[in-house]
Amino acid sequence: PDAEAAAAAAAREPQLTKPPGSLGRLEDLAAWLAAWQGRHPARLDSVRACVFAGNHGVAALGVSAFPASVTAQMVANFKAGGAAVNQLCRAVGAELTVTALDLDRPTADFTKGPAMTEDEVVAALNAGLEQVTTAPPDALCVGEMGIANTTSAAAIALALFGGSPMEWTGPGTGVKGEALSHKARVVADGVTANTADAPDGLEVLRRLGGRELAAIAGAVAGARLARVPVVLDGYITTAAAACLEAARPGSLDHCVVAHASAEPGHGRLVEKLGKRAILDLGMRLGEGSGAVLAAGVLKAAAACHAGMATFAEAGVADKPAAEEA
Amino acid sequence: PDAEAAAAAAAREPQLTKPPGSLGRLEDLAAWLAAWQGRHPARLDSVRACVFAGNHGVAALGVSAFPASVTAQMVANFKAGGAAVNQLCRAVGAELTVTALDLDRPTADFTKGPAMTEDEVVAALNAGLEQVTTAPPDALCVGEMGIANTTSAAAIALALFGGSPMEWTGPGTGVKGEALSHKARVVADGVTANTADAPDGLEVLRRLGGRELAAIAGAVAGARLARVPVVLDGYITTAAAACLEAARPGSLDHCVVAHASAEPGHGRLVEKLGKRAILDLGMRLGEGSGAVLAAGVLKAAAACHAGMATFAEAGVADKPAAEEA
Repeated sequence: PDAEAAAAAAAREPQLTKPPGSLGRLEDLAAWLAAWQGRHPARLDSVRACVFAGNHGVAALGVSAFPASVTAQMVANFKAGGAAVNQLCRAVGAELTVTALDLDRPTADFTKGPAMTEDEVVAALNAGLEQVTTAPPDALCVGEMGIANTTSAAAIALALFGGSPMEWTGPGTGVKGEALSHKARVVADGVTANTADAPDGLEVLRRLGGRELAAIAGAVAGARLARVPVVLDGYITTAAAACLEAARPGSLDHCVVAHASAEPGHGRLVEKLGKRAILDLGMRLGEGSGAVLAAGVLKAAAACHAGMATFAEAGVADKPAAEEA
Repeated sequence: PDAEAAAAAAAREPQLTKPPGSLGRLEDLAAWLAAWQGRHPARLDSVRACVFAGNHGVAALGVSAFPASVTAQMVANFKAGGAAVNQLCRAVGAELTVTALDLDRPTADFTKGPAMTEDEVVAALNAGLEQVTTAPPDALCVGEMGIANTTSAAAIALALFGGSPMEWTGPGTGVKGEALSHKARVVADGVTANTADAPDGLEVLRRLGGRELAAIAGAVAGARLARVPVVLDGYITTAAAACLEAARPGSLDHCVVAHASAEPGHGRLVEKLGKRAILDLGMRLGEGSGAVLAAGVLKAAAACHAGMATFAEAGVADKPAAEEA
């Protein structure tokens, strides 16, 4: 973070025409944006939502309520402007990029061994990184689409943080009952097959992640280099980012968690990362939807901090009544 | 509510390209908007934020951290575009109207008797009503400015819902310690002086409210007539609206609570009304700030519901994988 920009934000905030602290979290977010953009006041003219899509070998094991073909169908829907994230980008004022990563080549079934080779994971990381380092925006929202990727996210969370498979396994697109127990067994099998040698965060990403999760990690890392604050979406996005944090603590200090997903493992994951979600609206769609909605809150925070008059400018009394008397 | 519009919303929602329920509260809000606008899909092209300002006799008793002169100074700040609500309206895309109600004539000190005469409360109710029934917007955000009006809100809440004065009395602009205990005594004295005859909701508003609180109640009632869904801001706004609910249960069914204010009595008040806040960002500024921010969420909800492609339109499989196999 940039200490000078942070100090400038801290110096301006108490001069603005409101009781100290009365904008709550908006004040913290404005300061955080300045620190990570390295300029004061922070600007949020351009917000980019990057949605990454990938297919998963484990989809063939029946872990999702939808067939794997839906990944490509939804990518077409993003490109045609028909998905939720398209409407949200328009409502909030964000541009959308959609990156489909080798959809016709699913990752390997991770219950049998690593999901990706080193070449594959590096290619996906780079694909993500490029989406943010090329003409960097003022802020980045990351999201994903990939049938079976809550299974991947659960396996990553279990590998990184331990616990029981059921703690991290949720309904995703709508799996329940015996199918949910089966999904948890797939998660457990994946972790058993891949973590005997206690791999580090990036190895966990390679072995249990997917191309879209690796691209998210690449985008998050690229954003750090390019001084772009990041809004993480839901469970899958946060699990992908958690691999960076596991590899190097502090790697997600330039990120906020957009919302508390209804996917049950998300709350625990956010807590493990020491974060606190901005919104809590029971969303669990992915595709960056929660991140884009939260970017609207960031825009509001930046607008208040930069645009409000100071007590001196507005001629408003900033002294307590008792001190005046 | 309009049953036909509600039914149309309920019929469209499961056709949209997402797992059922995955947009969480956004789905509920889109349906609620349609029902109360009486049209499907709901439109949110025009959002109006109405901020009402008034002065309070009890301000002279030292219940606020700021002098009463700040009310007029902040009205000037709203008009000049320097306040938080101005930046938020710009960020979210809402128009702002500011109505100052006889600022040079504070209400009477309600520890001695009613704050307003019948003529005064009716004039204020009408001033609020006119702001929404003249060229009604697609949605209304209501907010307020008035030094000492958390004292008024606390007195209303105590009169309507009982409990102890301290349960409803909070720091407002920043009162603490002995000054906070004093504020709670003023609240208690106001209720003692005005509720011996168990007045109904509108009488509580007249006796313990203020002009800006009455104008809020008028705007909320006017919005119901004009089929305009309402976003209530924080503690004072919700207390003013609660007088309508007390007078006639169901009067706030066309309203949502924008955010969970940091003012401690707000959570209890929202619970008494059977509502659930949309945002929880530790805000406690008033002036409609939370309502306008939440209107951004409503816009997003309406945009998703109206703009998303259906499974049929997008050629996306809507069948569970198991049913396909």
